[in-house]
This record gives sequence, C-alpha cells and structure tokens, in this order.
Amino acid sequence: MEKPSPRDHRRLEIIPIVGLPEIRPGDDLAGHIIGACEAELGLADEDVLVVSQKVVSKAEGKLVSVDPDDPLSHKPLVLEESVRIVRRRGDLIISETKHGFVCANAGIDRSNVESGVVALLPDDSDRSARRIRDAIRGRIGKTTAVIVADTFGRPWRRGITDIALGCAGIQAVLDLRGTDDALGRELNVTEVCIVDELAGAAELVRGKADGIAVAVIRGVNPAWFGEGSVATDVIRRPEEDLFR
Amino acid sequence: MEKPSPRDHRRLEIIPIVGLPEIRPGDDLAGHIIGACEAELGLADEDVLVVSQKVVSKAEGKLVSVDPDDPLSHKPLVLEESVRIVRRRGDLIISETKHGFVCANAGIDRSNVESGVVALLPDDSDRSARRIRDAIRGRIGKTTAVIVADTFGRPWRRGITDIALGCAGIQAVLDLRGTDDALGRELNVTEVCIVDELAGAAELVRGKADGIAVAVIRGVNPAWFGEGSVATDVIRRPEEDLFR
Repeated sequence: MEKPSPRDHRRLEIIPIVGLPEIRPGDDLAGHIIGACEAELGLADEDVLVVSQKVVSKAEGKLVSVDPDDPLSHKPLVLEESVRIVRRRGDLIISETKHGFVCANAGIDRSNVESGVVALLPDDSDRSARRIRDAIRGRIGKTTAVIVADTFGRPWRRGITDIALGCAGIQAVLDLRGTDDALGRELNVTEVCIVDELAGAAELVRGKADGIAVAVIRGVNPAWFGEGSVATDVIRRPEEDLFR
Repeated sequence: MEKPSPRDHRRLEIIPIVGLPEIRPGDDLAGHIIGACEAELGLADEDVLVVSQKVVSKAEGKLVSVDPDDPLSHKPLVLEESVRIVRRRGDLIISETKHGFVCANAGIDRSNVESGVVALLPDDSDRSARRIRDAIRGRIGKTTAVIVADTFGRPWRRGITDIALGCAGIQAVLDLRGTDDALGRELNVTEVCIVDELAGAAELVRGKADGIAVAVIRGVNPAWFGEGSVATDVIRRPEEDLFR
C-alpha cells in the first residue's frame, strides 16, 4: 500500500458553535443547527458536526418528569431503560441499555435539562444523526457527517470522555487490516473507532458547563466519509465481550 | 459561577508534525521533537504536544528482541510486564501492567518497530512527558504541555482509541465540581479526562500507518495548564474499580 505523502497530512480544526437556542420537544433541531452553523462559519462539504445527545433527546421529546427534590427519583427509569444490570454499587448502576450501550444510569442525567425533568437517550441515535445529516444535504446541499455524542465513564480510568452514540455519513470504525506501518510491516492494531475520537475532540471545545451543543470538525480525511453506524459497527456483541 | 462569554470559546487546531527521524535508543528525543515542530510551525506557549509511546519507548531503550517468525514470541514479556491477569481468551491477555494500566498484551506490540523487536511501555510515562516538557522550556523557553499517548481497546465498544499514558504541564482530569450547567443547575458529570480526549484527538491526524509520532494541539484553554499526572489522577485505584 502506498504511503500518503506529507501533503495528505491535514490539520484539523474544531470549532464550537454558539447561538443554538434552548431546544424544546418538536423543535426543528436540524434547522436550528444549520442556522447556528451558518452564522458561525458557513457549513462546507466534509464538515463533521458533533451534536450533544441532550439536544437530540429534547427535540425528540425524550423527557420525563421526576421529583425535583429527590436526587434518586430517576432510578426507576434507569431500570426501565436497561436490559441487564452489569454492576451495581450503592446508588450507581452500570447497565446495558435497551440500545446496547453499557454505561452508568442508562445514560440518564439531570444536567442541562430543566429542574424536575430528565432526558432519556434517543431511541436510535444513528437515525437521529441521519435525520440531521439528511436535512443539511436537503436544505443547503452540503454533504456532511453527523455524530450524536454523549458522556460516558469507563472502567480502570477516572474521568469521563465523550463518545459517539450514533453517526451518519462517516465510517464509525476505520478498518486498517492489510495496511502496513511506517516500516512496511503489517499493523497490529487494525480498527480505530474514529467516531469516538471525534466525539471526544469536540468535547474539548463544547465543555460541560457552557451548554454548547454543537461543534464542527473541519479537515477530516475525505476517505473516512461514507456509511457508518454506531449500533452496528461499534457496539460489541455480548458473545465477543469479556466484560459483561 | 460566571459563565464564559462567547469570546472564551476557542477553536482548537490539531497539527501533525512530520519529519521526525526514526528514533533509536539513547537519541535526544526532545531535541528531535523540537526540531521537527520548529520546522513545521514554531512552538508557542500553551501548545500541547502529543507524542507516541512508541518513540518514547525507543528513545528510552525499552526494546526487547523476539523471534521474528513466531507471532506469539512476545507473550512471555506480557506476563513479565503484568501484575495481574484480568481476562484471558485464546491468545488475548487483558492484564494490569506494573504501571497500573489495564490493557491488552501489556501494551506490547510489534507495529512501527523493526522486525524481531518489540517495544515495552515506558517505565514512568509521566516522567517521560516531563522530560520532554522540561527540555522544551529549557532549550527554547516555551511553556508547553506534553502527553505520551498509546492505543488501547476498551470493553463494550469495538475499535481502539488513543489514550494518555503520561502527561506533564496539564491537568489530567478537569474537576468541575461546584460548576453550574448552562441552566444554572449543578453538573452531574464532574470529572472530564481531558488528556485522554486530547490523545484521541491527536490520533485523528497522526494515524496508525503513517508513523507520525507527534501532533501539536493549539488553542487549548489556558486554565487547563498546570501540574497533572496520569498515574495519580487517571488510573483508578483497584478498590474503587468495579471491573477487575
């Protein structure tokens, strides 16, 4: 396989998109995203948009009222959204959600939603991403990729990072099988989860406290665009997983 | 807590650094990195350099000869580098290394090293990062941060991502306790592992096949600089870990 020339080595730019209004159930999320992006920088072909799960869940009406004075009032919802408890310690529940994600509290949390309300994960985050990608193509004629991102913890390492719940228009996992390394030997590591790296990169400019729901990543390798799915390509099947 | 103004929302730029020579044991790695960065873009205060574990291990002489014709000849080294086997299936060993990382094959692999040689992880990757950071400060007077990055798999999700083995000059985990969200409510998620997100972001321009050992991330929030350590701040203590 031919090695890329230095000219193929692109710089990435990660741009926070401010100015998105507070999103409510039934809102035209794609329209708001397009408006905010166009105001900030103008969308271009091969831009990757990373969109917070929270605004997707709000637009899709995945909101449930809970007792605002009881910090544990969302726990019954955690069990409803789960198909299997993986670990439990005190109030902390690590479960496999009905979508197939393994995470704390079935992805339900109270930050960046109004008091007395919690947001559940979208039913199908790949589909949510496709809707936004399709709307951008249909309304302004730009071929972009969209990633729906959320914040998960992980075993063995402290701190959370953002990962992809869903994607559209981009390969989720880059398959490097058959690729040689820089010394001409076949690579050991062959599958890179680029949508998780892109989601984490976007978190660096979105922040947790700022309510910046969207970031645009510009400069991504054009070869990475195409069809991809987190549900199909990223979620590990239980039978090949050593940790549940 | 005051919310940042839109002016505080920075763009990040991620720049691959080409032109680093093949690194050999005893080489002045920091000098080579400085030279390649200065040729590419000129280092500035508050740049974050993400450096591949592979070149750090090579410079530090963490290379061991193995039978090039036996694909399993590094397996005894995996056991030597480990303090505990966490899971084992066929040839795959997930273990806790003597450094405290939980990963496949104790972080030992054969890609981007010469045939018949494998690279072990650095003894103390925080120290390795500090040496490079200190050299940059001492030789060209720039105050940067350095992250030593490697490629790890994870449970439940397919594909690998780059994470931080060590860091210097930057907080490893951002502590947001006491911070309000955009709606004025206290954040649920309070600890963000920014060094892992930065390492993954850098992988997007470094690639696996290209042998680009260094990337510079520019535009990182100045408030994140300071002292940090992966060993102290990121590695979860066994007693607080639900998955070993």
